[in-house]
Amino acid sequence: MPDTLSDHAPIDEARLQAMMDELSVFGGGPDGAMTRLTLSKEDGAARDWLAGWFSAQGFTQAVDAIGNQFGSLILAGANAPVVMVGSHIDSQPNGGRFDGALGVVSACEAVLAVSQRLKAEGKSSLCNFQVVNWTNEEGARFQPSLLGSSVFAGAAELDWALDRVDGDGISVRQSLVEIGYAGTSKIAVPSALIELHIEGDKALFQSGEKFGVFTQFWGATKYRLAFLGRQAHTGATPMAERKDAVLAAAYLIADLKQISREHGLDLHTSVGRLEVFPNSPNTVPSEAVLFIELRSGSPEILAEAETKMLARIEVAAANASVAYEVRAIDRRKAGRFDAGLIALAERMAATHGETARSLDTIGGHDAVALSAVCPSIVMAVRSRDGVIHHPTEFTSAADQAFGTRVLADMLYEIACKGLQSFGNTDGA
Amino acid sequence: MPDTLSDHAPIDEARLQAMMDELSVFGGGPDGAMTRLTLSKEDGAARDWLAGWFSAQGFTQAVDAIGNQFGSLILAGANAPVVMVGSHIDSQPNGGRFDGALGVVSACEAVLAVSQRLKAEGKSSLCNFQVVNWTNEEGARFQPSLLGSSVFAGAAELDWALDRVDGDGISVRQSLVEIGYAGTSKIAVPSALIELHIEGDKALFQSGEKFGVFTQFWGATKYRLAFLGRQAHTGATPMAERKDAVLAAAYLIADLKQISREHGLDLHTSVGRLEVFPNSPNTVPSEAVLFIELRSGSPEILAEAETKMLARIEVAAANASVAYEVRAIDRRKAGRFDAGLIALAERMAATHGETARSLDTIGGHDAVALSAVCPSIVMAVRSRDGVIHHPTEFTSAADQAFGTRVLADMLYEIACKGLQSFGNTDGA
Repeated sequence: MPDTLSDHAPIDEARLQAMMDELSVFGGGPDGAMTRLTLSKEDGAARDWLAGWFSAQGFTQAVDAIGNQFGSLILAGANAPVVMVGSHIDSQPNGGRFDGALGVVSACEAVLAVSQRLKAEGKSSLCNFQVVNWTNEEGARFQPSLLGSSVFAGAAELDWALDRVDGDGISVRQSLVEIGYAGTSKIAVPSALIELHIEGDKALFQSGEKFGVFTQFWGATKYRLAFLGRQAHTGATPMAERKDAVLAAAYLIADLKQISREHGLDLHTSVGRLEVFPNSPNTVPSEAVLFIELRSGSPEILAEAETKMLARIEVAAANASVAYEVRAIDRRKAGRFDAGLIALAERMAATHGETARSLDTIGGHDAVALSAVCPSIVMAVRSRDGVIHHPTEFTSAADQAFGTRVLADMLYEIACKGLQSFGNTDGA
Repeated sequence: MPDTLSDHAPIDEARLQAMMDELSVFGGGPDGAMTRLTLSKEDGAARDWLAGWFSAQGFTQAVDAIGNQFGSLILAGANAPVVMVGSHIDSQPNGGRFDGALGVVSACEAVLAVSQRLKAEGKSSLCNFQVVNWTNEEGARFQPSLLGSSVFAGAAELDWALDRVDGDGISVRQSLVEIGYAGTSKIAVPSALIELHIEGDKALFQSGEKFGVFTQFWGATKYRLAFLGRQAHTGATPMAERKDAVLAAAYLIADLKQISREHGLDLHTSVGRLEVFPNSPNTVPSEAVLFIELRSGSPEILAEAETKMLARIEVAAANASVAYEVRAIDRRKAGRFDAGLIALAERMAATHGETARSLDTIGGHDAVALSAVCPSIVMAVRSRDGVIHHPTEFTSAADQAFGTRVLADMLYEIACKGLQSFGNTDGA
């Protein structure tokens, strides 16, 4: 039902839930599972559904060349500042329903609620709002992640991004055409970017708090590394003559775990994806491609970990008698979100009697990519048990609505007072 | 051109090569590559081609319920002993053209040559010949390997074998129907099984010899083992809370290599296939399925290696905070091929002025499965550089023809003198 507090935007929790339920149909499986890989048929259907919502609510639509999907509500004239709000609706394979999707749905509901409140109060807005659904935030099907927002922010070349291929050799370019989202619109960098997301860790859940603000983000160094051996029969070939690419991968994966131990809580390492060729039980693998991530809030630790890793790659290759090649490196610097927007989020949470816990974000968010070009922020609502990227990922309807209320109140404040009222929003 | 030695069967090298070239079209790629996975479209087309050859040459055809393909030449009446000759035409992914295929083509050519020689000499035969193409020798698409010959020999249940599924969940049963090779014939165990194959190691190539006889075969213990962790975000999830299935796999793969070192040349270990789920760069893997092989000529060493492995599985799982389950175990005992057939092969090679080098076979062969139920043998011709399961696998036309001549001479001897003339062919 509509929020009855007169000093808040009228968030309709039932409408928000209905939207989440409708969106969850696309790619949804049993027991909360969600497989809506970016630019898949399911993603295309979900985008069509979102386009239908934009259309029904009178939002102006646009799709850019990397498939980022926009819906604008023009409240302040064509030349007024634009505040962008949103997240992504692509998911991990067998992931959950809230990561990303909540950010898009809450943006829709919040923008709608603000416009309704302004209308009811007879007020005009100092800015326009633009809901965004970024292409390939997850990086599950195509690498790197944050692809749409990185192209938008100028950190990745459009043509290079369009040429990325998935594990079946299908390109981003081809996939966009197939689902009808190879757009042509040129969308300007907004005056601010605001994203609501589930936390992805359990700080809020464990402390019993509802709301958090990411103040800084970790840096990440991601390698796509191939060990190159030689196919041979696993029976006849003498062990000493084997050039086993998977053996080298095994040595390195164990070493990466050891490197993380040497830096305590300050370094995360992982190999989440491993491609083996030809991947036959009877053939010594000739190729193993590792998707390696190193993450840290400290640039020094991140650099040190990379140096250690490079040394261990040499050792692993030598010990398995294989060669190697680095096929891609993706680096993201650690940094801080916009102080003015953080203060605004904290103040709006306080009007609801809640604190805004300061959080680090270790996983990437599209707002991280945008923070290089405009004031940006990610706020968080709690996820049960801190689960993310798993079917049991869950945020209650009340918590979803709470986060959406704070978001709407922030947008209302900006609409009434202008962005410049919120301190030094410099996006540094 | 036809062999001109009057005391040998007239092997037509050009015809043999033409058959090899025709067969290599099905699944053949550039630079010698061959991908003719069992029961694939390519395998179906190759089987149809073989059926056409059987038909053109007047062979009686049959296909049994596991898809083994037979072509019989009845030279001695319906109740005479049957000598089976052949191998398999399925290949590894990105494998070579000679492994298996040469054994089927040489069987066709040898049987044809023997019948022509008998006819030319006005002699009758004491036995009938049956060329065989076994289903799924390779074990690349479906596990275990030697599936068709194992069902034929009674070592595997038919229904169980038909229910095996490939990595896409497609069953043997379904695949047989799709390519039209779900047969109904009941084929009796033959009086002997003779197989010609490429060596798969480089003993012959290095010694400059043309021909070898496998006298014994190694045992193998194969596990399909799953480590079971939990999906989580590779960014946010603290390292200490991760349950990383691939990390456990890495520990075990390194340990298996170490176990092989502890047994010198007497133990081969491998993990040729590794399936990772969900296999996304940003998600801690929840499942890693390892296809493990332990191989040894010594039953004691094989048992000791298995015991060591089981202990290391426990340690690997504990160190990565994951569970595990053994999903399949396949055991093959070491043993010896038939002494009478070995002596015959040696004697026939000698009539060509060549020795028959005694070899161990470490990789499986269908004759290993058959050796449990009838006198069986595998002979080998050399493969350049000992290469197998790789596109550069190569046996010269002259070497192919040489092996086929020895094979034909063995069949001729048996046709003229009867199997019982060749000592204690008991298949033990």
